[in-house]
Amino acid sequence: MSDQTLNDLFLHQLKDTYFAENAILKAIPTLMDASTSDDLKLALGVHLDETSGQIKRLEEVFGIIGAKPEGVECKAILGIIAEGEEVIEEFAGSEALDAGIIAAAQAVEHYEITRYGTLYAWANQLGLDEAAELLKDTLIEEENTDQILSDLAESSVNEEADQD
Amino acid sequence: MSDQTLNDLFLHQLKDTYFAENAILKAIPTLMDASTSDDLKLALGVHLDETSGQIKRLEEVFGIIGAKPEGVECKAILGIIAEGEEVIEEFAGSEALDAGIIAAAQAVEHYEITRYGTLYAWANQLGLDEAAELLKDTLIEEENTDQILSDLAESSVNEEADQD
Repeated sequence: MSDQTLNDLFLHQLKDTYFAENAILKAIPTLMDASTSDDLKLALGVHLDETSGQIKRLEEVFGIIGAKPEGVECKAILGIIAEGEEVIEEFAGSEALDAGIIAAAQAVEHYEITRYGTLYAWANQLGLDEAAELLKDTLIEEENTDQILSDLAESSVNEEADQD
Repeated sequence: MSDQTLNDLFLHQLKDTYFAENAILKAIPTLMDASTSDDLKLALGVHLDETSGQIKRLEEVFGIIGAKPEGVECKAILGIIAEGEEVIEEFAGSEALDAGIIAAAQAVEHYEITRYGTLYAWANQLGLDEAAELLKDTLIEEENTDQILSDLAESSVNEEADQD
């Protein structure tokens, strides 16, 4: 396998991220349903819509490099989502549930931030300018979502959880 | 379970992160051994030392809240580490290997950044000032490591991988 290049690594990572985004698309409604805060439900709903757009951008990037959009199992995102589901189960009915949901969603966001950050850097190094722009658009959205979740955590949600 | 509070969630997250740090301590030498760049080996070696200190800090935080240091299986970090090992195996002997190792290490860092960010915020909300300081020290180290890895990726390592 010693003839593999950054192009191969880029495609591998693209498939991993494509799998991850599709897994996230299925997982967000579970987080929304479990949330008790309307603001949190709203923020997750906005990110659900964004995720659909991010999947379309990844499909455009596949097209740019002449590859078929397909996923490769991403154990990382499956583990991150499984942990979120465990917290929802364990803290169901608890005043700390929303804080746990925010933490789970931020773990998802940080996984996406690191993957899109890497893909963006590699696209630049490979001279894939159009792909780099698409990946950067998503990276900015992910960073914004993470910030919105941090703001939510620091405002009402955690304060409610800490009242007793 | 409806009587669970942010204190319980904090302890749950602390155990998750303690498990993760110990898993990372075991995983870093594999990344170091596989790296071909001396700069990358050095950066990972520095982070290996830091990780031991971060585990001690977590043990101090357990002490502050009167709990015994213990881990709870963290599926997320296991998935992230497994993906890194897959990349090392698939790209062994490839010129893109170091770029893949950096991406794997950055995925680990981002997981730690999100968990320490959450723990720090919760420690503040719970009035655990001393714990918050310890967690912030680690958070800063993790962010620095991520930046060092980004700098490495943008300098020699990826350029070498992109030469053909």
